[in-house]
Amino acid sequence: MFFDEGYSGRKYIMADKTYEEAEFVMYGMPMDYTVSFRPGSRFGPNRIREASIGLEEYSVYLNRHLEEIQVHDAGDMLLPFGNAAKSIAMIETYAEQLFKDGKFPVGLGGEHLVSWPVIKAANAAFDNLAIIHIDAHADLREEYEGEVLSHSTPIRKACELLGPENVYSFGIRSGMREEFEYAATSGMHMSKFEVAAPLKEKIEELHGRNVYVTIDIDVLDPAFAPGTGTPEAGGISSKELLEAIHTIAGSSVNVIGCDLVEVLPAYDPSEQTAVAASKFIREMLLGFK
Amino acid sequence: MFFDEGYSGRKYIMADKTYEEAEFVMYGMPMDYTVSFRPGSRFGPNRIREASIGLEEYSVYLNRHLEEIQVHDAGDMLLPFGNAAKSIAMIETYAEQLFKDGKFPVGLGGEHLVSWPVIKAANAAFDNLAIIHIDAHADLREEYEGEVLSHSTPIRKACELLGPENVYSFGIRSGMREEFEYAATSGMHMSKFEVAAPLKEKIEELHGRNVYVTIDIDVLDPAFAPGTGTPEAGGISSKELLEAIHTIAGSSVNVIGCDLVEVLPAYDPSEQTAVAASKFIREMLLGFK
Amino acid sequence: MFFDEGYSGRKYIMADKTYEEAEFVMYGMPMDYTVSFRPGSRFGPNRIREASIGLEEYSVYLNRHLEEIQVHDAGDMLLPFGNAAKSIAMIETYAEQLFKDGKFPVGLGGEHLVSWPVIKAANAAFDNLAIIHIDAHADLREEYEGEVLSHSTPIRKACELLGPENVYSFGIRSGMREEFEYAATSGMHMSKFEVAAPLKEKIEELHGRNVYVTIDIDVLDPAFAPGTGTPEAGGISSKELLEAIHTIAGSSVNVIGCDLVEVLPAYDPSEQTAVAASKFIREMLLGFK
Amino acid sequence: MFFDEGYSGRKYIMADKTYEEAEFVMYGMPMDYTVSFRPGSRFGPNRIREASIGLEEYSVYLNRHLEEIQVHDAGDMLLPFGNAAKSIAMIETYAEQLFKDGKFPVGLGGEHLVSWPVIKAANAAFDNLAIIHIDAHADLREEYEGEVLSHSTPIRKACELLGPENVYSFGIRSGMREEFEYAATSGMHMSKFEVAAPLKEKIEELHGRNVYVTIDIDVLDPAFAPGTGTPEAGGISSKELLEAIHTIAGSSVNVIGCDLVEVLPAYDPSEQTAVAASKFIREMLLGFK
Amino acid sequence: MFFDEGYSGRKYIMADKTYEEAEFVMYGMPMDYTVSFRPGSRFGPNRIREASIGLEEYSVYLNRHLEEIQVHDAGDMLLPFGNAAKSIAMIETYAEQLFKDGKFPVGLGGEHLVSWPVIKAANAAFDNLAIIHIDAHADLREEYEGEVLSHSTPIRKACELLGPENVYSFGIRSGMREEFEYAATSGMHMSKFEVAAPLKEKIEELHGRNVYVTIDIDVLDPAFAPGTGTPEAGGISSKELLEAIHTIAGSSVNVIGCDLVEVLPAYDPSEQTAVAASKFIREMLLGFK
Amino acid sequence: MFFDEGYSGRKYIMADKTYEEAEFVMYGMPMDYTVSFRPGSRFGPNRIREASIGLEEYSVYLNRHLEEIQVHDAGDMLLPFGNAAKSIAMIETYAEQLFKDGKFPVGLGGEHLVSWPVIKAANAAFDNLAIIHIDAHADLREEYEGEVLSHSTPIRKACELLGPENVYSFGIRSGMREEFEYAATSGMHMSKFEVAAPLKEKIEELHGRNVYVTIDIDVLDPAFAPGTGTPEAGGISSKELLEAIHTIAGSSVNVIGCDLVEVLPAYDPSEQTAVAASKFIREMLLGFK
Repeated sequence: MFFDEGYSGRKYIMADKTYEEAEFVMYGMPMDYTVSFRPGSRFGPNRIREASIGLEEYSVYLNRHLEEIQVHDAGDMLLPFGNAAKSIAMIETYAEQLFKDGKFPVGLGGEHLVSWPVIKAANAAFDNLAIIHIDAHADLREEYEGEVLSHSTPIRKACELLGPENVYSFGIRSGMREEFEYAATSGMHMSKFEVAAPLKEKIEELHGRNVYVTIDIDVLDPAFAPGTGTPEAGGISSKELLEAIHTIAGSSVNVIGCDLVEVLPAYDPSEQTAVAASKFIREMLLGFK
Repeated sequence: MFFDEGYSGRKYIMADKTYEEAEFVMYGMPMDYTVSFRPGSRFGPNRIREASIGLEEYSVYLNRHLEEIQVHDAGDMLLPFGNAAKSIAMIETYAEQLFKDGKFPVGLGGEHLVSWPVIKAANAAFDNLAIIHIDAHADLREEYEGEVLSHSTPIRKACELLGPENVYSFGIRSGMREEFEYAATSGMHMSKFEVAAPLKEKIEELHGRNVYVTIDIDVLDPAFAPGTGTPEAGGISSKELLEAIHTIAGSSVNVIGCDLVEVLPAYDPSEQTAVAASKFIREMLLGFK
Repeated sequence: MFFDEGYSGRKYIMADKTYEEAEFVMYGMPMDYTVSFRPGSRFGPNRIREASIGLEEYSVYLNRHLEEIQVHDAGDMLLPFGNAAKSIAMIETYAEQLFKDGKFPVGLGGEHLVSWPVIKAANAAFDNLAIIHIDAHADLREEYEGEVLSHSTPIRKACELLGPENVYSFGIRSGMREEFEYAATSGMHMSKFEVAAPLKEKIEELHGRNVYVTIDIDVLDPAFAPGTGTPEAGGISSKELLEAIHTIAGSSVNVIGCDLVEVLPAYDPSEQTAVAASKFIREMLLGFK
Repeated sequence: MFFDEGYSGRKYIMADKTYEEAEFVMYGMPMDYTVSFRPGSRFGPNRIREASIGLEEYSVYLNRHLEEIQVHDAGDMLLPFGNAAKSIAMIETYAEQLFKDGKFPVGLGGEHLVSWPVIKAANAAFDNLAIIHIDAHADLREEYEGEVLSHSTPIRKACELLGPENVYSFGIRSGMREEFEYAATSGMHMSKFEVAAPLKEKIEELHGRNVYVTIDIDVLDPAFAPGTGTPEAGGISSKELLEAIHTIAGSSVNVIGCDLVEVLPAYDPSEQTAVAASKFIREMLLGFK
Repeated sequence: MFFDEGYSGRKYIMADKTYEEAEFVMYGMPMDYTVSFRPGSRFGPNRIREASIGLEEYSVYLNRHLEEIQVHDAGDMLLPFGNAAKSIAMIETYAEQLFKDGKFPVGLGGEHLVSWPVIKAANAAFDNLAIIHIDAHADLREEYEGEVLSHSTPIRKACELLGPENVYSFGIRSGMREEFEYAATSGMHMSKFEVAAPLKEKIEELHGRNVYVTIDIDVLDPAFAPGTGTPEAGGISSKELLEAIHTIAGSSVNVIGCDLVEVLPAYDPSEQTAVAASKFIREMLLGFK
Repeated sequence: MFFDEGYSGRKYIMADKTYEEAEFVMYGMPMDYTVSFRPGSRFGPNRIREASIGLEEYSVYLNRHLEEIQVHDAGDMLLPFGNAAKSIAMIETYAEQLFKDGKFPVGLGGEHLVSWPVIKAANAAFDNLAIIHIDAHADLREEYEGEVLSHSTPIRKACELLGPENVYSFGIRSGMREEFEYAATSGMHMSKFEVAAPLKEKIEELHGRNVYVTIDIDVLDPAFAPGTGTPEAGGISSKELLEAIHTIAGSSVNVIGCDLVEVLPAYDPSEQTAVAASKFIREMLLGFK
């Protein structure tokens, strides 16, 4: 319904199972039309898939191999360009289906707003849901230039839906004063600048809970991820993000879905952002279930 | 209302008059959210302005100098990202104001859909309006994947509003079969592949009429305009497009406004598309009134 | 045997038929290891496929639509990197199979040497074979630095196999003195610098014959095809190459296979070479059978 | 006098005050003609201004907002290309005026030689002046290929004018043996390789003094600042440079002016150098006064 | 004296003779400091040399081979960066030496101002000198922002030295009104927009005269030469420039030296400008003597 | 025999001694035809040489100057493109000659397979040889898609020749499960992820031994070395690699040769990989003997 039936695009490495066979379902959300700065993350999912052919199928970090898991790559959703409201509704419907079918969704963005409908669907499907949010930006705005459906608002919406105390943000180094005041007073958790160290500490609080993980690639310093929509200097390294993923993987939380967003190939002639992203996806696939 | 009051961005060369003083009003329409392929033409207007600093203010083609005319550069409109319907409405309102104030609009895109509201406003302001449309693509679709507000539809909408017999397309080399059937049967004029030669012939038909000129930069071969959203091999040269502009300038039609759309800087590291576009704008400013 | 069975890469637009259903079989030959200058054309086939998603499925030049033909895209062959002799043997075996199965091969290079084994197989399968060769380079060397399997030798080999009088080269503007002497004295046809005009003249000589068409993208001026291994200034335009393809399509020769080689994406950040190549492929598919 | 009166270029974010209203005056020095390697830093100031539109106006590091300060962006100086001596004289005259008018200069380079005339003017205006110099290169040469006005000499000149004991260099990892010998014996301070840690230690020595801060972006590793004239591997991260700026901001020194030099956009297709530089400028504006 | 004695840089293909052995002396003039827009042509000579390794040593246009001539590549001059006056003086002294030693100078720029001292030296060495100038820009200014040593002035200076009637400009499409008035009234020859056709006509006037040929690569459309300092849309093709060179080569004029200037590699990631320039140089070497 | 006698390419900075005079012999191995992903490292050696002109000749890390040592730069070997077996044999013969003549080889790759024949020659020339291998990839495969001569196999071959206990790998973060099992059980040393810290510890074991050092530039994170064939996120910084080189330089091992491989310029428009590599080469030259 939401995908091109005759789709014949590149798939992520070894993501060759049918929907029915798979425990993980990977899907692209090529939406980038509410961004206020550089668009083009619609091409992120496909560039990540292409970069995956340079990856080993085995992770020496986790001592696991992609042949140990079952992944279906559904391709990119057919979203109506320029119609944010309809796109969000379509993503939510699809995510509901995934959770109903017992699948573990692995979403590829696209702009960060795509996480919001998935979180809504996850909240409907799971009790006691918490969010781990790794990002350079707070994404806690109530609206952007009058639009509530904006790439700057998804985490605020998540706080309002789940209760702020169930949202854990890490690595935040940019936002409006109002966003940081909200973070400080609402009861949500926010770790500024750092990711791996505070996550190691906080992960214990989430023991046994259902957790959705959303990563904005711009949490990395632009040196490590130049191809992104709103690069922000002073970020973390790829090593630290791998450490964070492995911390979650090694913890007692029950991850029920994840996404990686904001890879924008047009600004990255050496393709290092997609190369890194494809590795983070591999580590999440091998570590989160 | 539609522009940032404290706006302090780069202006087009010598476009330093106030709105009140000006006969020409240049304005950017940074909308690129309905495109089906590469987004990013939102940055087109500003890159054209920057490239204009490398231009001479004098045109040896027309033997005219920018100091002979009065141009106001209003900057880029503050459009709501991801909301095509609202953006189109804002552009229409602004264009209505321009025509009411007796200004000659010079629009910088952005995707080609931005021409549609300006054509609507022009049609309301002028009797006997005709359109000269120079483009690689027919843009005659009725809808694109269910959306009527799409970068593939503006010329169809113009045909329906003005009557197809008042629309003249040149240089078309790409479209669906249905679009070319519409062109062949509706009564509109369409010259395939070529621009300068057929325009020289057809311009006589338009003698004395009010004409709006809309140019999609992708009418050029990608060799001359690599930085565009849907490049299409087999196009014309910059020389031929200059010749077309000079043909209109030297004719007896009454040009009442114009635009140049689809400059997309992110795919053009040598900036040749913006460099060429800034020259086409200069020639239109010096030649069209 | 020669392809990855679980292959899940991007396919060319609408090339979604099975091998059995198809009349045309498209296949990539990611070989670039004998080139003396820039390698990387191994990525050409996939970039052409990706660029094809920006194409219309309908050709206004030929008034035909891709849904009127049956195309199978087999993906890229699994060639042993660095082993030219074995790669050439594999391509020959595969081409033999294609001809035996009555398929029309559409090869995507890779370096120009890949055409040689296909020509050998075509010669075995068809009587009265002639070659139309469109290229900037003569490719008539007997060897290159001691290696007979080189990207500089395929047309010489074709001359020796088929007889020089059955080889027609167009657009040649670079080579050693010895190659041009061979062209002048051997009985082959060579048109220097130009393609469309001499081809229109010569095509009559080939009336009713079986013809294999091989196009090196570097026949275009680097302005039109910057992404290639040995760019050579002073070439033809995309328009002229389209005209040449349409001349063959409209003639009375019986094209039995074709290829397009030497697209090298790494040197082409705006992707204009792949964009153009994907269109040439569409025109050959729609025009050659 | 030194600026284009009709100047209408992009301004730094919120730098919209008049000269009279402002406490900070930002100005570009588009000089790059004495560099021995890659020129092009003349475009650095404008690219930093453009990148600033992607910045938040609020700094979570300092809990301050750009609306709390008054900044005038004067644009780029009209320097005579190719005439270093005259350019230096113009900058000095302008800087004298700024100090006389009680302004805090924020200079954007341009090559590092542009700091020299500002330091001269600062020394004339303030007692007890010290320099904090953050750079990969010592810049302590007496001349370069016979020219004393060279991008390799400004810090040597500063040492000679102020006395070496008033110059503090950090992060130095490249230079001639003679420069390091001068550093070791002259009485100046030089910390090799590191910036944040030694600065924290040394800043106490400068308690209460008037300090001019000059930062060469190449103190960053090329991973963080690829767009610069003489990149030097083994540098610091953006995080460490932010830490250094915040150390100065939180100290008891009296910063009286600053500059950031050597941003060279042409070698940085992802614009990460300008993106980072625009953030460093924001932190200096919000932290240094 | 003017070159690095221990110079070990790349040489132009087959330019391996000693100064004494050579009839042609090739030399780079890495000066770009008076340009008003993009600098970086200092790297042009070396990029042309590198690109030459992709060239055939034989020209099928002229049926000549580089082994038939004797070329010395002296490398790049050691010019004092940022000191235009001294650089010009050095070039003049060197050119005087070349002419005195009976050498044919082949200069590689660098900005166009470098042609001026060579023309001065040529005028001193040869009677009855004329200039063939192929360029997009008139270069007839008397000064640029107060500097008489500017990249906009060399042809004006040539007119004043030789008499305007001895200067022939072709392809000019940009300049100030004053420059075109000077061209129209001074007695010099200027062909606007076109090169090959008017040159064929005018070359007869120069029968038997000593001629210096200076080519600014920006006479090409930016499609053919994106890597240049002041690209100007609407130019000629590489084919037309080759035709112009061959027209001079086949004429009865006595070429006594030539140069090719304004190749700027940093804006040309596919290196097509250097690739084309290296071929133009080969054709001038093989055709001009 | 293996080099172009008339070679006139760029040499590494100050590498201007004759073969006879030199203690160090630098040579390029432009082989990249067995790589499975991105080719193009054949241009690595020359880009490193070019980048070296931006380097200081003095190292402040080691307090040594290039004039203290004698280096010959032999240029790039003339390897037969596409013939891996013959290329490997040629490199081995040349390396044997170097060791026989008492030279210290400094090899520039090219793909990593080029290290294998040099290690063979070193093993024949020196008793008690050990290998220090710094890389992201284990390179311990027995074959790759049926080819034993592959860029994935050189360290396995070294283990088999020297005995695994004489091979020390550092920084490894990618490989097949089988490779890591071999590393764990064969007796070789492998430090995962880290380089400088474990090297400091292990270097003592190698006291007094003859050691060959091979560095694959992809041990760096792609942020520091985007221009490489198989980039792998999560790597070390340039600072850490410098620290590793200095650790070896300051130890009691007897380095008898070294190489640096896999620099691939086409994917690195800012040239930061070559810039970094040229510095690592300088530090190895100044520190290893």
